[in-house]
Amino acid sequence: MNKVVLIPDSFKGTLSSEMICNIMEINIKKFFPSCQVVSIPVADGGEGSVNCFLSALGGEKIYKTVKNPYFEDMQSFYGIISNGETAVIEMASCAGLPLVEDRKNPQKTTTYGVGQLILAAAESGCKKIIVGLGGSSTNDGGAGAATAVGVKFYDKYGKSFIPLGGTLKDVVSIDLSKRAKKIENIEIVTMCDIDNPMHGPKGAAYVFGPQKGADSYMVEELDKGLVNLCEVIKKDLGVDLKDVPGGGAAGAMGAGMIAFFNSKLQMGIETVLDTVNFDKTIEDADMVFTGEGKIDTQSLSGKVVIGVSKRAKKKNVPVTVIVGGADEDMEEAYDMGVTSIFTINRLPLDFQLSRLKSKENMDATMENILRLIKSINK
Amino acid sequence: MNKVVLIPDSFKGTLSSEMICNIMEINIKKFFPSCQVVSIPVADGGEGSVNCFLSALGGEKIYKTVKNPYFEDMQSFYGIISNGETAVIEMASCAGLPLVEDRKNPQKTTTYGVGQLILAAAESGCKKIIVGLGGSSTNDGGAGAATAVGVKFYDKYGKSFIPLGGTLKDVVSIDLSKRAKKIENIEIVTMCDIDNPMHGPKGAAYVFGPQKGADSYMVEELDKGLVNLCEVIKKDLGVDLKDVPGGGAAGAMGAGMIAFFNSKLQMGIETVLDTVNFDKTIEDADMVFTGEGKIDTQSLSGKVVIGVSKRAKKKNVPVTVIVGGADEDMEEAYDMGVTSIFTINRLPLDFQLSRLKSKENMDATMENILRLIKSINK
Repeated sequence: MNKVVLIPDSFKGTLSSEMICNIMEINIKKFFPSCQVVSIPVADGGEGSVNCFLSALGGEKIYKTVKNPYFEDMQSFYGIISNGETAVIEMASCAGLPLVEDRKNPQKTTTYGVGQLILAAAESGCKKIIVGLGGSSTNDGGAGAATAVGVKFYDKYGKSFIPLGGTLKDVVSIDLSKRAKKIENIEIVTMCDIDNPMHGPKGAAYVFGPQKGADSYMVEELDKGLVNLCEVIKKDLGVDLKDVPGGGAAGAMGAGMIAFFNSKLQMGIETVLDTVNFDKTIEDADMVFTGEGKIDTQSLSGKVVIGVSKRAKKKNVPVTVIVGGADEDMEEAYDMGVTSIFTINRLPLDFQLSRLKSKENMDATMENILRLIKSINK
Repeated sequence: MNKVVLIPDSFKGTLSSEMICNIMEINIKKFFPSCQVVSIPVADGGEGSVNCFLSALGGEKIYKTVKNPYFEDMQSFYGIISNGETAVIEMASCAGLPLVEDRKNPQKTTTYGVGQLILAAAESGCKKIIVGLGGSSTNDGGAGAATAVGVKFYDKYGKSFIPLGGTLKDVVSIDLSKRAKKIENIEIVTMCDIDNPMHGPKGAAYVFGPQKGADSYMVEELDKGLVNLCEVIKKDLGVDLKDVPGGGAAGAMGAGMIAFFNSKLQMGIETVLDTVNFDKTIEDADMVFTGEGKIDTQSLSGKVVIGVSKRAKKKNVPVTVIVGGADEDMEEAYDMGVTSIFTINRLPLDFQLSRLKSKENMDATMENILRLIKSINK
């Protein structure tokens, strides 16, 4: 093998995608010392996404003081990649749930800092901004972030305010005219891997509110706020976000990114593949290695493995997949470009036990795959 | 791939070696339709061993009425392979534990039928007899089998008798002079995968007596019988079997095979490899597939995988190993010729659950290994 491309998703709760890339690369260098290895740890938009992009593409991490979920100053950051042309922001870096560990309250938290990061990135001169959603503590529909870039929200007294999850219901009008000019001509792409709508039983409040600290009464109130925001957006901005898949991502920040930032929502893996110029990267590769925690026939769409495989198939590059678990019937995955699927379970143990050995198991599995390849390739 | 050799051990309690060969072959034909496949399901000497040899080499199964463990007539069998030159006998076929399911008693059961099979095989004109030990209901030190071929056991009254587990202690002398001439010039090889000695705390009675129905008092009595047999063998036949590894196999039939049949004890896998002419068979093979239930660093010697790999290494043929479980550090196995080790656990489940899916898991694992090979081999 002369060139391989590593592009694994994380194994949720056990191995980060960077860690997996690292294990894979060490093993490849052991068996194929002169092989070129391109590592692309996959970012899903949540915590660690900026580091993933920087690790895959190189670049710069810019630190910036912005507001945390409670409007307190904090040190956050964004990434600059592609020779300064693209900025990468993860909302978790200043609106994440770990930042409010003992004072979770989606009625009171804001995405204001995310807007500050977007503005700072825009002012740095980049042409494109990637915003990763995920891991948020908020339910403000992105109104906080919008306010930070100049969008105005008015209550029934005509007074402008920064809506929070608990006060979205007070918004009666929205005005985009004061939005910072700097962001007008920038392409903003939002990474979003879920397809929940903005509100309703499958919406942001009902599905994700509880893990952010909402009790059932608060969930209802939050949902009402989102219903109101949705209606005002439709009235004033002329866009109906009610049924948009992903609108409910990250406390309905998905919807806010569309409405207030002219952004499109995109699957994380597609964003990564586009950004790293994947199609070109694999053209002369002998093998792509990818993987994820579990691959099953029920949820092939939007998954890293399938996103990667579909593109590799077009370039006729084999895809070796390493997973923590695989369903029996993988015919559909093979059809979509997956060459082979290996699981890391070296012993027949329950996940509660085997998860403790994920690193060693990944290492052993990768080693043995390479041993096999080398024995064929000799 | 133009030629592969399949030589898996059984996965104890889940998959027979024949079943594994079958799954492997189906998958190979699917991805490499023109590939020559040589299937050698490994016999360990226990139940199914004759079928394994017949399946690997072709031949004939000869049915024969002999005595069961309680001296009742039963239909048993042996195999004729290698153009009639070699006979294969499994002692389990007429002295096995399943034959006495509800009347287990190692003081009363005999290996007489095994001797009858050996004699019948010898009279058929073969030059070599392979006797597989394992799964026995007996503890007679092979005295029953010996009697069937003419060996005489005498008690203190000078009366000849057929010693059982409970009457071995009464043997005072042994006479080989009446042994059937037919077996004198035949090479007899005994397959034996355990190294327990004839008697003592690690001997046949103490270690295997209980599973044959002996309580602790009976175990002591059985052991005394074996001690006596051992002493009389030493006195009359001039051979000290006390510390011979494997002498305790199958109710000390291991010792009896040496003393009464001039047999050597040999690991099952070595017997199989010799019999199928393995070294020659793999010379033009691209890959050997083997496997066993579990491979661990503690017990590499005598295992099928290692036996196979050592020989394949000499011929420079890669060995792909498929197992139910593998220890972390397999460096030693790699050194002994193992190329790569894959486990069949497609999901992180406890063995109690995963064992129910062994067949599907083996199938999926084999398919994916072949998919990988094909993608490299294109």
